[in-house]
Amino acid sequence: MRSKWFVAGLALFFALSAGSHFLHWNMTVQFAFSAIAILFVAGFLGQATESVAHYAGQRLGGFLNATFGNAAELIIALFLVKEGLFDMVKASLTGAIIGNLLLVLGLSILLGGLKYKQQRYNEEAAGHNATLMVLAVIGLFVPAMFVTSERFSAAKDELLSLSVAAILIVSYLLWLVFSMVTHKELLRDEQSQADHDEAPAWSRRRSIVYLLLATAMVALVSEWLVGTLDQFTTEFGLSELFVGAFLIAIVGNAAEHSAAVMLALKNKIGGAVEIAVGSSLQIALFVAPVLIFASALFGKTMDILFTPIELTAIGVSVFIAASVSRDGRTNWYEGALLLMVYFILGIAFFLV
Amino acid sequence: MRSKWFVAGLALFFALSAGSHFLHWNMTVQFAFSAIAILFVAGFLGQATESVAHYAGQRLGGFLNATFGNAAELIIALFLVKEGLFDMVKASLTGAIIGNLLLVLGLSILLGGLKYKQQRYNEEAAGHNATLMVLAVIGLFVPAMFVTSERFSAAKDELLSLSVAAILIVSYLLWLVFSMVTHKELLRDEQSQADHDEAPAWSRRRSIVYLLLATAMVALVSEWLVGTLDQFTTEFGLSELFVGAFLIAIVGNAAEHSAAVMLALKNKIGGAVEIAVGSSLQIALFVAPVLIFASALFGKTMDILFTPIELTAIGVSVFIAASVSRDGRTNWYEGALLLMVYFILGIAFFLV
Amino acid sequence: MRSKWFVAGLALFFALSAGSHFLHWNMTVQFAFSAIAILFVAGFLGQATESVAHYAGQRLGGFLNATFGNAAELIIALFLVKEGLFDMVKASLTGAIIGNLLLVLGLSILLGGLKYKQQRYNEEAAGHNATLMVLAVIGLFVPAMFVTSERFSAAKDELLSLSVAAILIVSYLLWLVFSMVTHKELLRDEQSQADHDEAPAWSRRRSIVYLLLATAMVALVSEWLVGTLDQFTTEFGLSELFVGAFLIAIVGNAAEHSAAVMLALKNKIGGAVEIAVGSSLQIALFVAPVLIFASALFGKTMDILFTPIELTAIGVSVFIAASVSRDGRTNWYEGALLLMVYFILGIAFFLV
Repeated sequence: MRSKWFVAGLALFFALSAGSHFLHWNMTVQFAFSAIAILFVAGFLGQATESVAHYAGQRLGGFLNATFGNAAELIIALFLVKEGLFDMVKASLTGAIIGNLLLVLGLSILLGGLKYKQQRYNEEAAGHNATLMVLAVIGLFVPAMFVTSERFSAAKDELLSLSVAAILIVSYLLWLVFSMVTHKELLRDEQSQADHDEAPAWSRRRSIVYLLLATAMVALVSEWLVGTLDQFTTEFGLSELFVGAFLIAIVGNAAEHSAAVMLALKNKIGGAVEIAVGSSLQIALFVAPVLIFASALFGKTMDILFTPIELTAIGVSVFIAASVSRDGRTNWYEGALLLMVYFILGIAFFLV
Repeated sequence: MRSKWFVAGLALFFALSAGSHFLHWNMTVQFAFSAIAILFVAGFLGQATESVAHYAGQRLGGFLNATFGNAAELIIALFLVKEGLFDMVKASLTGAIIGNLLLVLGLSILLGGLKYKQQRYNEEAAGHNATLMVLAVIGLFVPAMFVTSERFSAAKDELLSLSVAAILIVSYLLWLVFSMVTHKELLRDEQSQADHDEAPAWSRRRSIVYLLLATAMVALVSEWLVGTLDQFTTEFGLSELFVGAFLIAIVGNAAEHSAAVMLALKNKIGGAVEIAVGSSLQIALFVAPVLIFASALFGKTMDILFTPIELTAIGVSVFIAASVSRDGRTNWYEGALLLMVYFILGIAFFLV
Repeated sequence: MRSKWFVAGLALFFALSAGSHFLHWNMTVQFAFSAIAILFVAGFLGQATESVAHYAGQRLGGFLNATFGNAAELIIALFLVKEGLFDMVKASLTGAIIGNLLLVLGLSILLGGLKYKQQRYNEEAAGHNATLMVLAVIGLFVPAMFVTSERFSAAKDELLSLSVAAILIVSYLLWLVFSMVTHKELLRDEQSQADHDEAPAWSRRRSIVYLLLATAMVALVSEWLVGTLDQFTTEFGLSELFVGAFLIAIVGNAAEHSAAVMLALKNKIGGAVEIAVGSSLQIALFVAPVLIFASALFGKTMDILFTPIELTAIGVSVFIAASVSRDGRTNWYEGALLLMVYFILGIAFFLV
């Protein structure tokens, strides 16, 4: 909430989104307003989370940041799950992962590389993250590859999906123990640490109130947005895959996008890599399994079976991001190539 | 044969396995006794091989160790081949590779990492091994991917399988030349070297007698074990894939498991990586092709076509092990994640 | 044109190829003569290109070398495209990539490694190239994987193929900017630089005349060669896949083969890696898309859909080459394994 412009935009588009929803305006208008409103309320939620995390102390704060970092995406996806739009949920998870690893990382590296000839970072920490992400994403997608190649019965699908979701959640909790308790000094980056030490803009009490308010706003706008998707998709002849993987993922990830690019432009490319890779880790290990458990609670379990196209997209993105982030140096051409791969995937998803 | 307990266990379970076999006890009892007996006789064979290798001098001894290191697995698999249980053979090869790369390596890294914050090793030697393993396993599985995607005639399958087996054996012989003749000082690890220099417990003559005895015992128990598998599998409703890839592979690999974990607990994680990766190399380059030639001698050539599930499992394991072993540092979380992936694969194999 | 033997061979086999073509000799004889003639005229074209590049100055010369480096392959493939032999075109692109990454690199590393125990090179430059190649090849093959897994309509295939081709050409142009303008000092290798500084054998004017002459000769012999393929393939019962991926690719790449092996034998293994990887980059990013645009101009757009077998072969080759070239050290066994993988692929392509 650093500027008055942000507050004004937040209020304006929240109001427009609410108005268009309750007054039953044209669906495309509703979609556009709620999509823009999501950008603002997700940004608001991100700032409130950071502020509360600041007051909560280092360890609990880190946990909050790690868990609520993708809260906006999680809330949007929960509404999709509730509507039974499982294909769009999986498409949006796919889109969030490839968006982070190709679009966020690509833009950061490209723009940072245009300003600085070569950007370097401590590849020990980031490369570590990259290896873990490879492992995590493999863990997430192994069952999909299994079930794609052999026919399972529906009951087994459900059992497999829930078991894998449980293993992933356990992996995530162990990761929190690892990164915040046993090896926290190994992964800390001095530069990003400095950024986190900035004094928050709000008091403790106000931060908590804002966190609750922002969560409620995200939930409302998400519900309105999801309500328009069906008709919007039909009207423009777009596939669920494209809407989920590109439109929703970009809107839900906008906060990370701008933060990562800002860091790259300050020659802190390590922080940008951390955001992109960390966010992907969180989606694979936390958001995806939570959605599977949530769907079971809503009465119909979402399976964990991604389509071959989604698997291809994710596999390619992880492979590239791991290659790029392992050598600890970046230049503009690497960023450009990441974006090229993103464009190719975008065209392919659009044409499906 | 370091302790009296080991000798007692060996004698007891060999006798129980033999008794249950010849007296036609309940199949499950037969299976359980011969599975436990295999653990002991495989351990005995391993010790006898090392002792003979000690007397044989450095070069021939290295060759013996390299070739008979997986002798127990090879013998079990030969009986499976003789029975025509080709699917179970391939499942057990798959299981041996993923067991080494995920279970053995994962447990070693996890337990070592709980004791020591970060374990380091000379990544030059181990990383070298890892690259070779990637190459080797690719060599083994390329034909499977080919034949899976295009239909070959049966005659061509056989020709392709035998040709590839020949190429793999040649690769293995060249690897022995490389690691024991032309570049032996590059790959030697001082720590593991020290372990090998321990004086053997037996005289030269006794070592040879024990080697022959142990081989005979492994062969007998393997035959008894294989004889129970059919009925055991049916009775418990398990798939051949699960029994081959998990039960048989764990039993046949127990000696490597304990040796690798012991090294990790002594902060010699490099030795543990070497065991896990080296054993996988041997299975891909030596055991698998020998089994194909053996099947041709038995009258019906086993093809080299692994199922998509097996390929997925192996590909994932190799990719992870290569990632982990390339950076020369390990911590408990990496071990935990390897185990998580092993659990996911185990659940999926169980449900197929 | 360093020796009289080369000039004599060039003249002789060009004449024999022309004679056998116009006098309608036996097809196999025509094929053999034009295949040998291609070796000579491609070598001639390579020398003329280098000589013109020398006079053109550093920047334009680099561009010429980069763009005409695979001119012989491009010209052969253009005639295949004109004949509508799309499957053979894609097979020959596949063959050029795996030939560079397995055969050229494997032979160079093997022969260099037999002479020198361990060869080292600046992995910063070569590893950089390898990462880019991985990215580039992924970019090329993502659409194939997409379309293989989901059915697209023919119109969408064409749109996707043309879009991807455009993105790849842009990537290639950006790569030229990167490697010749913004980061040229990063990628320059002092050793290979020294080689390029050798004075050319011909005057400026003669170089240009020779370049035009060589291009014309390559075009003629390519047309004659392509004209024999149909009957030759049928007569010997060979698949288009095998002829395209092995015979044509080896013939078209002979110049790179000998240059790379020569560098390896002079202990300049970095130059050999650069040739093999650089040539693959050029094929994926420049030759392939140019052929797609050319086919559109000829009236029937070639799609960009490679078969699963081709994708497997390329994926495996890139993965191996990236592994080998990333650690900056090579030995004979790595070369031997690359060749083993090449043999396995060769047998599999032959049997398809």
